[in-house]
Order: sequence, then C-alpha cells, then structure tokens
Amino acid sequence: VKTTTIALLLQEKGNNVRFHGWVDKIRNLKYVQFLIVRQGDHAVQLVNEKGNKAEEIINSLTLHSTILITGKVVDNPNVKLLGLEVQIGSIEITSLAERELPINDNSNHETRMDWRFLDLRSRKNYWLFKIQTLLERALRNYWNTRGCVEIHSPKLMATASESGAELFQVDYFGDKACLAQSPQFYKQMAMAAGLDRVFEVGPVFRANPSFTSRHDTEFTSIDVEISWIDSHADVMDFEEEMIKYAINTLMQELPESLKGFLGISIPKTNISFPRVTLIDAKELVSKTGYKSQKTDDLDPREEKVISDIIKKETGSDFVFITDYPITARPFYHMRHESMLTHTKSFDLLFRGVEITTGAQREHRYEKLKNQVLEKELSIEELKQYLDFFKYGCPPHGGFGFGLTRFLMKLLGYKNVREVTFLYRGPNRLSP
Amino acid sequence: VKTTTIALLLQEKGNNVRFHGWVDKIRNLKYVQFLIVRQGDHAVQLVNEKGNKAEEIINSLTLHSTILITGKVVDNPNVKLLGLEVQIGSIEITSLAERELPINDNSNHETRMDWRFLDLRSRKNYWLFKIQTLLERALRNYWNTRGCVEIHSPKLMATASESGAELFQVDYFGDKACLAQSPQFYKQMAMAAGLDRVFEVGPVFRANPSFTSRHDTEFTSIDVEISWIDSHADVMDFEEEMIKYAINTLMQELPESLKGFLGISIPKTNISFPRVTLIDAKELVSKTGYKSQKTDDLDPREEKVISDIIKKETGSDFVFITDYPITARPFYHMRHESMLTHTKSFDLLFRGVEITTGAQREHRYEKLKNQVLEKELSIEELKQYLDFFKYGCPPHGGFGFGLTRFLMKLLGYKNVREVTFLYRGPNRLSP
Repeated sequence: VKTTTIALLLQEKGNNVRFHGWVDKIRNLKYVQFLIVRQGDHAVQLVNEKGNKAEEIINSLTLHSTILITGKVVDNPNVKLLGLEVQIGSIEITSLAERELPINDNSNHETRMDWRFLDLRSRKNYWLFKIQTLLERALRNYWNTRGCVEIHSPKLMATASESGAELFQVDYFGDKACLAQSPQFYKQMAMAAGLDRVFEVGPVFRANPSFTSRHDTEFTSIDVEISWIDSHADVMDFEEEMIKYAINTLMQELPESLKGFLGISIPKTNISFPRVTLIDAKELVSKTGYKSQKTDDLDPREEKVISDIIKKETGSDFVFITDYPITARPFYHMRHESMLTHTKSFDLLFRGVEITTGAQREHRYEKLKNQVLEKELSIEELKQYLDFFKYGCPPHGGFGFGLTRFLMKLLGYKNVREVTFLYRGPNRLSP
Repeated sequence: VKTTTIALLLQEKGNNVRFHGWVDKIRNLKYVQFLIVRQGDHAVQLVNEKGNKAEEIINSLTLHSTILITGKVVDNPNVKLLGLEVQIGSIEITSLAERELPINDNSNHETRMDWRFLDLRSRKNYWLFKIQTLLERALRNYWNTRGCVEIHSPKLMATASESGAELFQVDYFGDKACLAQSPQFYKQMAMAAGLDRVFEVGPVFRANPSFTSRHDTEFTSIDVEISWIDSHADVMDFEEEMIKYAINTLMQELPESLKGFLGISIPKTNISFPRVTLIDAKELVSKTGYKSQKTDDLDPREEKVISDIIKKETGSDFVFITDYPITARPFYHMRHESMLTHTKSFDLLFRGVEITTGAQREHRYEKLKNQVLEKELSIEELKQYLDFFKYGCPPHGGFGFGLTRFLMKLLGYKNVREVTFLYRGPNRLSP
C-alpha cells in the first residue's frame, strides 16, 4: 500500500491504508484500545482489539511519539473526527517520546523559548506560521501583479548601510565586515540599475541592546522600492493597497472557525488610511494633555495615543504620519521644496505600533552630497553609495515593513518574540 | 494629468500624458529632435519640433539621464516602437547622467562587478532578475499546493550548524556568535515542532576562501524539509516534481522571442531524473578512463562526466547520485538498514554541477547520538540539536537547492557571480 496522509483518509473508506502520525491520546479499555493520531491540524481515531501484537506496542507507547500504522478505514458516524476510524493492522513506533516534557502550559516565557520547538507544537502556534505563510504569499501576489522584481541583497558588507550605530561586526578572513541593518542602499542600487520596482524579504541585523516588546537583534524585514514616483504619496498609495490586499486575501482564505479560535480582530480595509503630518499629530496628542519626550518624532506613548484618536475618529487601525523634520530622518530622505526643514517621509502606525518607515529618496547627486555634509557624515565613506546617483537614477522611494510587528498586532500578541520562529535578542542566541 | 507608464501608452492614443523614463537615444535633426525613452523593457519615441523651451533642455541632455515628460500621444504607423510617438509638451530632467560611464562593453569582470549597478542595466541582466523572480514564484506555488509552511530561521547562532569549518564569527555584545552555514538544524527543528513541511529562501554564509566559478561566501539557499517520509526516495520525488513544475511554469510564462534572445536551452521535463548510486556512478566514470581524486565522492570533473553520460543515454539534464558512504556525509544522514556504511542520501546534478544535497535524516535519538560519537563530534556541543529528537520527531528528510547554480546552468552563464545580484567572495565585500 502507498503511504497516505490523515487529511486524505476520508477518500479511503473501506480501504487498507498506511500512514504516519503523532500520538495525541491513548485510551486503554478492557477489550479495546483507542489512539488519536495527528498530522498537522488533521486527526483520526485508531482502534485496536486487544490480544494481538499491536496491544503490546500500544502499551509501550508514550504521548508525542510518532508511529507508522497500517490498517483498514471503516465508516463510523459515532466518531466525531472525520466520521470514521482506522482498525489497526500493524503499528510501528518511529520515534518514542520521553514520558515527561520539559515545558507545560504553566511554563514561563524564557523556558518556553528554551524549548521553542515544543512551544511551537500548540495549535495556536501551528496556525501562526500557516498565517505568516499565507500573508507572505498574498504580498508576493500583489508585487507580482505590479511587475516587481525580487532581489536578494548581500547581508555582508564592507561599510555601514546607514548610521554605523547598532552594527554587528564580522571577522572576514582577518578583515572586518558588517552585517546589513537593512537592504536600504541595495534596493536603491536596484533603482539605479533600472529594475524599476523591487522587493526583498530577508533578515536584517541590529546590535540593539534593548529588551522591549518590539525589538530583536535579527528580524525579517520586508523591503520595497519603486521608481518613477512623483512624491512619497505614491509610496504610501502602494503600501496601503498592498496591506489591504494582504488582509483581504488572508481573511478570505482563513476558515471562520479559525478566526474565532485565534481571536483575530480584522482591520477594516474599506477605509483610506488617514495621513497626518507629524506636526498635526503632535498637536492632536498634546491636546490630550500628554507631554512628549521627543520634539521631532513620536515617542511610543504618542504612537499609541494618536492611533487611538484616529481609530475613534475614522475607524481606521492604520495611520500614516508624514513629513518628519530632517533632524529625525536619515540624510537620504528627500526634502520638501516648499519646506526644506521637512522630509518627504512617513511612518505607518498599526494599532499603536510603528510597522513601517518610508520616504521618497533624494536621487539627485549634488543635493544628496550636500545632505551628507549637513549631517556631518563622510563623503569618502559613502562614495560607493553616492556613485549610484551619478549616471542617471529615476526618482524613487520605498519602505520597510516589519513582518513580526504586523503579525503581532494582527493576531493580538504582546511581544514580537511570540511571533518569531526563533527570537534573537541580546541574551538569546539559542537554540 | 495623472502620471502613466510607457507600457500603458498604447491605451492613450490622442491623449495628453505625463510619464517618466530613461533617455536611451538622442537624435538632433535640423528642425526636429527625437528621443527614445525607456522604462524597463518598454520604450517609446518622443518628438520635439525645435524652437521651444524643450529644445534647450534636450540640447543639455545626456544618455542615461532620467526625464519627466508631458506630451500628446499620436498614432504613427511608421514608428517601430508601439506604432506611436509622443509630441513633447514639456520636459524636465529629473537626474542628469555624467557624459562618460566608467564601464563599457569591453570592461573586464572585476570592473563590471565594481560598477555592478551599471552592469545590471543590460537587457540580458534585466531579464535575468525577472526570470529569477518568476522562478521563485513558481517554486512557491508548488510548495503552497503541497501545504508547506515558510520559515525564517535565524542567521545568528551560538554554535556551528554543522561542522564548524568555514564559519564566520560575529562579535555579539562582547560574546561570540556564528553566521548560519545553512538552516539545516532549524528546518529539522520545525519537523520536531510539527510543522510537517517547511521551506526557506534565505542567505547562508560560508567562510570558504576558494575562488571557483561555483563558490561564494554568501548565497541564497532554498531549503526544504518534509515529514512522514518512508525514505530519501520520497524527498527526491518531491524535488524532482518541484523542479519540473518550476521549469514548465517558467517556459510557459516567458515569451518565445525572449528565450531566443537569452539563449536558454530548455531542460526536458517529460523524462524521469535517473537515480544512480554513487558506486555505479563512479564505475561508469572510471570506464571512460578517468581517475578520480576522491574515493567516497565525485570530484567536479566526475560530476561533469557522469552528467554527460546520463544525458547521452537518457536525454536527461538532471541526475540524482544516491547512497553516499558515511565518510562523505554529515553525522545526521540516516543510514541504510541493509548497508550501514552507506547513507540514505543524494546529490542532484544539473548539467554537470551539483545543485542539491539531500537525505533522509536520522530522527531516532539513540541512533543519532551514536552517529555523533562515531564522527568524534561533541554530544555536549550538539545537545540542543539532539534534544529535538527526544520528545517525538517524525521521520523526515530534505534538501538544499542552490538558486544561483541552477540559474547559471539554466541560462548558460559560466559563473555564479554573473547571476548574483551582488556577489560576495573572499576579496569582494563591496559595493
């Protein structure tokens, strides 16, 4: 018999089958034994009449072990799972689990992270990564219909990609290399190379020693850069449409029962994401009486407050904050012609957390050089980057999108660590 | 007028339009000026009657500059490009290119790599990255229909993922971390976590000081791991179907003219990939008179020879070499019950180059521990990895697939450097 899967057993009624699975439950009655065996989100009941070889094997079995079964699929309307059961012919233990697991439902966060592979076995975590997969697929469909090219930019580089702060250093054949903090320079290089619209999904590295619920030393960044724009509004349009498409796709593909089980609160996608300048946002927040800790940016508390105000006023879970002053932005953000102290930039907040920073970039060599000097950075060190703009470069802009931050707020988690396959922080490099 | 794209101009005949583009050609006649302007693979002719402001601007224009045009789209069957031209209303230079580019058609490899963004502007390179994008999309479609989950495993780790050789070291807050050489341990962890089938597309790092046409210090690896297998044959089946699906999709989506332009020779997908044991493969090669430099593996020359033999005999551009001896394989490959000196492993060769290493993994804790000891590795150092197999773990296997090696042989390039967005090698960390 060819090996089948539990998901396909419904098509096998009356047939002899062979399949693998996890042992989820064992019930030993006087004359008969029952097992619940699972693959992913599919489970089936097995039944064994005692007095055969299988009885002994089942007696030695532990929960979480894996087995290979041959047997016959029989109709049984009394069984909740699939309305059938499998009469065991033979059973082989393919891996025997220890009797005690090192974590249980009461384990604290650090213990769960130490044993992340066991922590991931929960049904909620199983679906979390299914949803992440669906989400990325939706994003890719969106990019595809818009003619975007996928790039894989190098993570090893000779010089810092941005400020030089929070940089990990690598021993590179006796020399020094850095780990990329973002694909920023390389996705802009793709614009100078004429690739027009690019995206990248990949790891970025930040030597940030902080322990907040939003930070990690390595995370998956989703990066987009598009050419031939007229302003940062075009970049916001692109991202807003992208997010709405992804949410709509996700909600269409997830079964209703699952949305309930996961407690997903679905963001409305029929509302335009409001766009508020930083100046206006800060004024709205100050009216609530809150004194900000930052003059040229929003502090985390302000992000929360402005998100709540916008949600109340418009129903939107998202809000673009635009036109940050040059002091709060890197040298390569383009400035407003009519207000040279402010940049054509934006952040996107989702339920109180910043999930994106974006901007139109300065693509004009002379202006860019001046902005480097103004920020007291080194023209020398940035030479290769500046060269991208010397031989013609389309007007362009883009954004980075934090996958785990988005998932965290979509699924109602409190910490990015919970939605990361394996979290990395200042004190965590393993497993 | 809303900004449009050159690709959409055909729908705009008779209309006033506004669009961006690269300046590809400038022709200055007595009374009239012509420009060819391009976005990606789409180009259009612009025409300007002299004596207006646009004339001056065009006179100051250099090739490779970018411009923003407003004008009227008029039918012109004499124009090859799209059968239309745009009568220039106004023109604005959005970036002015230097008159001389630092590379030309005769530049050597290193100079082209120094100026990779200019090198990438060729039509061939434009399509190379379009094809890479298509290829990855096809692979993802395949994984999706088979219920695979996407993972993003950490690249920073406390200990070596495999042998400890070729490992880059990172300064991690005063401590040492390593860069992942492969997601091997983590994709196996996903199996122990019950994710059943996973894939990852991401960077891997190898501190390999060699300069061959197949090696780099950082490359994009495509990794797959699947549970509930009966042997490595199931893994080969999965990969063979995956590659055939990807090639078929690619060939359906690429226009015929482009296949000719790129000189693609299409591998046949209606032939089963032959599966030859290493022992048989070495015998076939030795019959040609070639003396191998390796006893338990194929050397690069042998890979070429066996590929040629198989191609001649069967017409297949692919061949699986199977059942490597344990000396040639890492400790975690499963061994044949009937031949404990040989592993349930395989390589996949494509046109003479190894593009995959795969195997069924040893998932049984006690056996795995013995194999660690036999290879004289440290149980202590591998503790966290070994723990994955203590609490139940499905029988599983998987493979890594080298994206750039596959593209190199599919498109007839001689070197992985040419098909990498930005190559990294012992002497190359920039741009």
